[in-house]
Amino acid sequence: MKSAQCPIPKQRYDRVLLGHGSGGTLTQSLIDEIFYPAFSNPFLQQQHDGTVLPLMSQHIAFTTDSFVVSPLFFPGGNIGDLAVNGTVNDLLCCGATPLYLSAGFILEEGLPLEDLKKIVKTMAKAAEKAGITIVTGDTKVVEKGKCDGVFINTSGIGSIQKNLRISPKNVTEGDIVIVTGPIGEHGVCILSTRENLGFESKIKSDTVALRSMVMNLLSGIPNIHMLRDATRGGIASTLNEIADTAQVSIALDESKIPIEEPVLSACELLGLDPLYVANEGVLLVILPPEEAESALQIIKNDPNGSKAEIIGEVVKGTPGEVYLNTALGSSRIIGRLSGEQLPRIC
Amino acid sequence: MKSAQCPIPKQRYDRVLLGHGSGGTLTQSLIDEIFYPAFSNPFLQQQHDGTVLPLMSQHIAFTTDSFVVSPLFFPGGNIGDLAVNGTVNDLLCCGATPLYLSAGFILEEGLPLEDLKKIVKTMAKAAEKAGITIVTGDTKVVEKGKCDGVFINTSGIGSIQKNLRISPKNVTEGDIVIVTGPIGEHGVCILSTRENLGFESKIKSDTVALRSMVMNLLSGIPNIHMLRDATRGGIASTLNEIADTAQVSIALDESKIPIEEPVLSACELLGLDPLYVANEGVLLVILPPEEAESALQIIKNDPNGSKAEIIGEVVKGTPGEVYLNTALGSSRIIGRLSGEQLPRIC
Repeated sequence: MKSAQCPIPKQRYDRVLLGHGSGGTLTQSLIDEIFYPAFSNPFLQQQHDGTVLPLMSQHIAFTTDSFVVSPLFFPGGNIGDLAVNGTVNDLLCCGATPLYLSAGFILEEGLPLEDLKKIVKTMAKAAEKAGITIVTGDTKVVEKGKCDGVFINTSGIGSIQKNLRISPKNVTEGDIVIVTGPIGEHGVCILSTRENLGFESKIKSDTVALRSMVMNLLSGIPNIHMLRDATRGGIASTLNEIADTAQVSIALDESKIPIEEPVLSACELLGLDPLYVANEGVLLVILPPEEAESALQIIKNDPNGSKAEIIGEVVKGTPGEVYLNTALGSSRIIGRLSGEQLPRIC
Repeated sequence: MKSAQCPIPKQRYDRVLLGHGSGGTLTQSLIDEIFYPAFSNPFLQQQHDGTVLPLMSQHIAFTTDSFVVSPLFFPGGNIGDLAVNGTVNDLLCCGATPLYLSAGFILEEGLPLEDLKKIVKTMAKAAEKAGITIVTGDTKVVEKGKCDGVFINTSGIGSIQKNLRISPKNVTEGDIVIVTGPIGEHGVCILSTRENLGFESKIKSDTVALRSMVMNLLSGIPNIHMLRDATRGGIASTLNEIADTAQVSIALDESKIPIEEPVLSACELLGLDPLYVANEGVLLVILPPEEAESALQIIKNDPNGSKAEIIGEVVKGTPGEVYLNTALGSSRIIGRLSGEQLPRIC
């Protein structure tokens, strides 16, 4: 019954080929040689179109993010840990315990396989550190010039305690705004690396999953109203979104906003407003005033929160507006970013 | 307290700008004017970084797929319904009831907003038809020439009945293989449209979510071993994967494999083997022989299954090998696709 078969010579490649996206032998070699060794876990080894997972909670958080950062590698990280940490932080900001992550790769023909390996290894490490399991994935390949190295989508599932509801709609007058760390580092790092500006020797991306910080906050503080990571558009855009959804007004105290000297200098030189520069490991925490000091202590005790500050409060004012009270005693409205300040920051 | 503010003139754009990915005003306008009106549902309106969802099952299926099909529009569908149907079918193939979908867009600067609107509307319709809710999303924009119009990632969650386990590892000697419809239509349609070959007047993509078919199968047939949609790499690659995972051998009867005349002609002319051409609305169903006839009846009663056939069985043979018994009485091994036959088919 068995007919003659030409043995296919085992070829070695050091770059991504279009055939790596075919669903055939080459796709399988990518999975077997790069993805499985890095991400190995029993869920992933179900080898089906999706993964069957146990879930002990009646409420889940579900989130998705595509990552197109340029360059792929930068001081403090690469697109791989960025893609894991970003989605983990989004789950945490829903008040969820991160459980399961998917990874969807779009690869450009010609990408060095060494680069892909590095990225995938970084993802695996980041996932382990963040306590989340990469359980399902997908790979597509497009022709050279039809994407830019690699784009990664991660989607995440987390479990939520029955009575916990973190939502912008909870935010109310009198609430306190805490920022968990110095702002602007990720955005300035990416811009500087991309444009060879030289600041990257001093400024690293702050990409990190804030699992322990948020888990401690959620268990220690009964009534957190809102958590959000201040990514694209920085703390200014993020607070504008929250003010808009909650129909409240927020006033910030400029002198309290933590920012490291190299970031401030870089922003001044580049004409960037650090309030609008992306962060990847900085959260905004909004909660009732009576809980602000204990929350601040919990955050400061975390390795990623030692420079946290109370930076503002929810005030009477025009719904949807965010004000900045400057060191000179004036006050100005800080609106949303209307165009694009820094493209492809994440 | 309120300082003077320059009103931002309300500008109209008909193309995607880099600023649409900024996380600021333009991103919000994309969400408000294109995504929310199409996808509107209470979950999506939580307006947080992720979505909190109820779940009544202790087992879920989780799957992800990125779609990079070229061209974006083709006879029978566009990248939008392809992205919804593909992920819904992957959930169904895990034996799951589709519940929640995420949508991650990577847009190329310059993409006509009209195209995006069309795609998003098609997604919304496909999701409604498939009984799945788009609950969370993300949009990134890259510079012109750094992607190709639009790439879409969808990730899906479905609930699984406690005792149901569909898995390639269930497949065992004696099992019957059913294909739910004629093969090769999607792949030939995409190739023909992309290369202007003219076949597209007769051949439409078969993209469709097979929810009703699979739900009826799962409730009517107690012991389905395996379900898989025969997408990239066609039925040949899909069956090779299954044979490999299950460590079984599969024999197909060439004369039973349904294929429409225009697809067969096109494949002959183009030198394509239809067994390797992608399908988007065709499943392989593998199950014990005593249930094959009832399963075939259920499939044939479905509007998308009227041309289903029993095409083969799991036989004694070298584990991992798939054989094709031809009409002429010979038998040959059909291996996996070793290179790329048709890039960017989904």
